[in-house]
Amino acid sequence: MDRRTEMRQIMRVKAGEALTVEDPVIREVPLTIYLNGQEFVTLLYTPELPEMLAAGFLRSEGLIKDSADIISLRFDEEQSFLFVETKGSNLAEKLYGKRTITSGCGKGTVFYSVLDALKSNPVQSDFSLTSEQVIQLMKKLQEKAELFRRTGGIHSAALCSHTEILYFCEDIGRHNAVDKLVGMCLRDKIEITDKVLATSGRISSEILVKTAKLGIPILISRAAPTTLSIELAENLGITLVGFVRGRRFNIYTNQERIILS
Amino acid sequence: MDRRTEMRQIMRVKAGEALTVEDPVIREVPLTIYLNGQEFVTLLYTPELPEMLAAGFLRSEGLIKDSADIISLRFDEEQSFLFVETKGSNLAEKLYGKRTITSGCGKGTVFYSVLDALKSNPVQSDFSLTSEQVIQLMKKLQEKAELFRRTGGIHSAALCSHTEILYFCEDIGRHNAVDKLVGMCLRDKIEITDKVLATSGRISSEILVKTAKLGIPILISRAAPTTLSIELAENLGITLVGFVRGRRFNIYTNQERIILS
Repeated sequence: MDRRTEMRQIMRVKAGEALTVEDPVIREVPLTIYLNGQEFVTLLYTPELPEMLAAGFLRSEGLIKDSADIISLRFDEEQSFLFVETKGSNLAEKLYGKRTITSGCGKGTVFYSVLDALKSNPVQSDFSLTSEQVIQLMKKLQEKAELFRRTGGIHSAALCSHTEILYFCEDIGRHNAVDKLVGMCLRDKIEITDKVLATSGRISSEILVKTAKLGIPILISRAAPTTLSIELAENLGITLVGFVRGRRFNIYTNQERIILS
Repeated sequence: MDRRTEMRQIMRVKAGEALTVEDPVIREVPLTIYLNGQEFVTLLYTPELPEMLAAGFLRSEGLIKDSADIISLRFDEEQSFLFVETKGSNLAEKLYGKRTITSGCGKGTVFYSVLDALKSNPVQSDFSLTSEQVIQLMKKLQEKAELFRRTGGIHSAALCSHTEILYFCEDIGRHNAVDKLVGMCLRDKIEITDKVLATSGRISSEILVKTAKLGIPILISRAAPTTLSIELAENLGITLVGFVRGRRFNIYTNQERIILS
């Protein structure tokens, strides 16, 4: 049984006829992360790899730097609680709380991150891809996602080398999918700064900021970017490639990392 | 000139050939809402109808009940600030702040809303649609959205009567699109509890909770729901219809409001 889906009885209407059938639906479940004994954040996620999600979230938000900062991860499945113990980062926790409050939050936007990111150092990396590699990586992402397409409504993301998908995730949340990838890299002590992030979803400023914070030099997507994500990619040294479909794609920023072959 | 898009110079790669072209990109801009003189929240939105977004957001979050609660709305375009003055709801503002802090926020999820909603009263309404009306409303939504498809990466949402789209919005944020609709209903003093919400996007728990808080009895989508949104729709008396494509759709909950014709 796949933990990511659940069979539901639904009424299917087709050409005026109604049929009661069982249909797979993507699961969405709350996960409450406790950081060093304190309730920290509740995420809604597709229940797979909760430890990786928690570790990746803390890394993405800058609360830990690498796996050595994590003392333990414990998942209470019944309550869907995830307990993380980290090495004394009380200051970071206080700062994090403070920033969340003063800048406000709502509807998927924690805007302070954008401002933060603008001030941080641009990504510097000689990592590059040929145009053929861009096309093939997106093809591989779509083939993997195919397996799960039957439920609709899922985001897929992959962390890739020049030619291979190293880690693949699907989640109802675009951010969750990326954070799970990051968590797996932490666990396996794999460098993320010479990798490509490939995603099925749109590139809004939040995904761009997350990519920049992690130091990933190239971001490729099947979908569209926004103006703000293009501006941020320009300023933060990220190569942004969108609309990768078949043998076509658009390069929005820092095109020197894409070798036209 | 369409305020929702901006022309950008991009490099289009096709069959190994690269061409520098101008391409429309959807705009994403921060909007900071000041509530009664205090910075309240910053949203990232597609810059159209900022006043409607602010009014709708406050209504959706329960900080105002109707348009009579709004004394004034003032948009400072240069700074992208939106100043709202409301009738003395200090208690609500304090509560709102408190709840945001204690339950944490991040990555598009403000989970307290789900718990809140579970405790609230289910939507009670005799409003119903025939299956033909479901099909035609989604067709109309798609025709409208067609205009804007060229940029990719946009969500469309509409508030509908049995047979017509009354208000239509597109925004990079699924929540924003709904809040703008709500703002327009407030402005025009139109009842929202006997309407249908039609959306192009997936039905996650957050959209479901928003629909329930507003008292909208029927939610129809071209895309998939999640398990949590189905559970909430069941408990909150909302008729949830998904995968409306061509002449097919799925009814997930409270099917008595859909008359099979």
